Amino acid sequence: MSEGPVAPRPAGVIAALPATVPFVGPEVIERRTGRPFRARLGANENAFGPSPRVVAAIAAHAGDVWTYGDSEAFELRAALAAHLDLPRDAITVGEGIDGLLGLVCRLYLEPGDRVVTSLGAYPTFNYHVAAQGAELVTVPYRDDREDLDALAEAARAMPTAIVYLANPDNPMGTWWPRAAVEDFIARVPGQTLIVLDEAYGETAPKGTLPPSTLLRPNLLRFRTFSKAYGLAGMRVAYGFGEPGAIALFDRIRNHFGVNALAQIAARAALADADHMRAVVDKIGDNRRALAELVAELGLAAIPSATNFLAIDCGGAARADAMLKALLDKGIFVRKPTVPVLDRCIRISIGRPEQMALAHAALRAAAAETGAL
Amino acid sequence: MSEGPVAPRPAGVIAALPATVPFVGPEVIERRTGRPFRARLGANENAFGPSPRVVAAIAAHAGDVWTYGDSEAFELRAALAAHLDLPRDAITVGEGIDGLLGLVCRLYLEPGDRVVTSLGAYPTFNYHVAAQGAELVTVPYRDDREDLDALAEAARAMPTAIVYLANPDNPMGTWWPRAAVEDFIARVPGQTLIVLDEAYGETAPKGTLPPSTLLRPNLLRFRTFSKAYGLAGMRVAYGFGEPGAIALFDRIRNHFGVNALAQIAARAALADADHMRAVVDKIGDNRRALAELVAELGLAAIPSATNFLAIDCGGAARADAMLKALLDKGIFVRKPTVPVLDRCIRISIGRPEQMALAHAALRAAAAETGAL
Repeated sequence: MSEGPVAPRPAGVIAALPATVPFVGPEVIERRTGRPFRARLGANENAFGPSPRVVAAIAAHAGDVWTYGDSEAFELRAALAAHLDLPRDAITVGEGIDGLLGLVCRLYLEPGDRVVTSLGAYPTFNYHVAAQGAELVTVPYRDDREDLDALAEAARAMPTAIVYLANPDNPMGTWWPRAAVEDFIARVPGQTLIVLDEAYGETAPKGTLPPSTLLRPNLLRFRTFSKAYGLAGMRVAYGFGEPGAIALFDRIRNHFGVNALAQIAARAALADADHMRAVVDKIGDNRRALAELVAELGLAAIPSATNFLAIDCGGAARADAMLKALLDKGIFVRKPTVPVLDRCIRISIGRPEQMALAHAALRAAAAETGAL
Repeated sequence: MSEGPVAPRPAGVIAALPATVPFVGPEVIERRTGRPFRARLGANENAFGPSPRVVAAIAAHAGDVWTYGDSEAFELRAALAAHLDLPRDAITVGEGIDGLLGLVCRLYLEPGDRVVTSLGAYPTFNYHVAAQGAELVTVPYRDDREDLDALAEAARAMPTAIVYLANPDNPMGTWWPRAAVEDFIARVPGQTLIVLDEAYGETAPKGTLPPSTLLRPNLLRFRTFSKAYGLAGMRVAYGFGEPGAIALFDRIRNHFGVNALAQIAARAALADADHMRAVVDKIGDNRRALAELVAELGLAAIPSATNFLAIDCGGAARADAMLKALLDKGIFVRKPTVPVLDRCIRISIGRPEQMALAHAALRAAAAETGAL
């Protein structure tokens, strides 16, 4: 019976992969517990939502979805080119930064290649690195920031294919000013690809992002419509870099993969910068109010340039207890799991009504876990 | 200056890839020529469009897109499970069949692996095979059908990782009855993965598709909302197979990659089967009318079970001239490029007003190219 059907063997790197996922979605937790969350503040979504003009554009084009989206996302890339002051061929569009990070790993990594990131940084990047059979080397955060010196040093210590930096950072929300990032870029070895994840760039203080025109042969930068623009569910983000590197994406990407409505929504979002800036202001106001409560409760808010706040609970045991207490109270939040960072919980900044629920739950959770 | 930045070297298989794309989109052609098409009949889109209930559901949820879509697409998979009479864990959802085919190739192919398909079959599958550095072996069509005997024989001749079959076929539109497909599945070596692409399954005559419950350890089947359901722009499709094979997708897929509105649209589409069946009837009516015109013009319509018609122009030179003439007249159509099939052009079946334009253009093109 050697000819009978069997489960074909997956490729070697796939067979070695764990069945874990980088993030467990809130709906998955709701199905496990049987209880819906009262406030959705764990995935750094933007509850202030997209511009009303974006919502109107999606609704207006709902009947047009029988056509594939433009495979070149020409109009969106043209709008981004104007927005970034770059040529269109310096920009590629994809299904969220997650999708683009997957493509980067496929473009540049072979089994055994060395990749440097921070211990506790974005797990979905690590997930895509693992899928290529590459070796992840991590350096610890320093003072709750990604350690630029240590990252550059690790990239110099041995031949390194990719070094990953998120600025502002996730999950801590900290950031480096432009000059420090530019210095980092200059110190990474010239043949190492720098993946600069600027998903939270729009919420950062002026002077955080290098100018969009800062490109290098070994630099790829990524931004998204999922955060400040409030379009997480539409799955649209972009990468920019020197045209030669950007052209490589066309060799493997899903050419008709970016949803037609997502392209329309992203264009409408870019066109309403006033809405985005107003949302960023509201995020800042609500983040500061949360930080004040945190201080009042005797905890410490980590300074944040993002739409979330990492809260130092003083130790991992209390942070774990705080997380559990918040989840039990119907507030979806997450927390870092790696040592040092794991003394924190992370709360996304939502609308005032969600924040009111979060404030009350946080106050109660702090009281309940005070003995830890 | 050996330390200066350089373009990092892409992975070996990537460096060897051509910069070609599997399909040039209609918008790309429009930008090249500077003229918009009058009828969009080249990408097998469904101009009858989705159910009005789908359009209403998209519009109603346009304001909800600040959340990520459910990473497990639980509700959609539950609806598909009921639709297919399968357990939910036998189903995975992805960004179109194109996206799922890319994942299959990454799951199962290593450089040098052998993959069997038909010469002239779906180029996007071949594109994903090439990205893994695998070796594509092609067998010719026979009588304008994918040659089941030759495909199974090629898979038996040497160790073969994947054999691809589309039923109904694209670009010819031909099909095999269920019994022939089941016999093919039984004859493929047990350790070879069969990728059965049923993108056009809903438009095929009863008795074409094996029952949805026909699963094998070495079989993965794919269907989409892009064709009969009219949702090409939403990018949502599904694969089904034995749960062990389906679980592998979770190791590498973009877990939050399926657009939130796409999940809602697909559920609404499944729930309005009457609309889909009515559209399939209209496609059949318009396809038959086109076939009658083709016969009247002295050309031959290839029998089709799909939402398109391959038209035998009698030779590659005339087919090329017909294609050019139709494009010149503003009718977006495509044609196969490989020998034997290249004597045909392929016209998607659209709404009556588009078909009227196509009929007139086809009549004129046939007259203009009659001497070839």
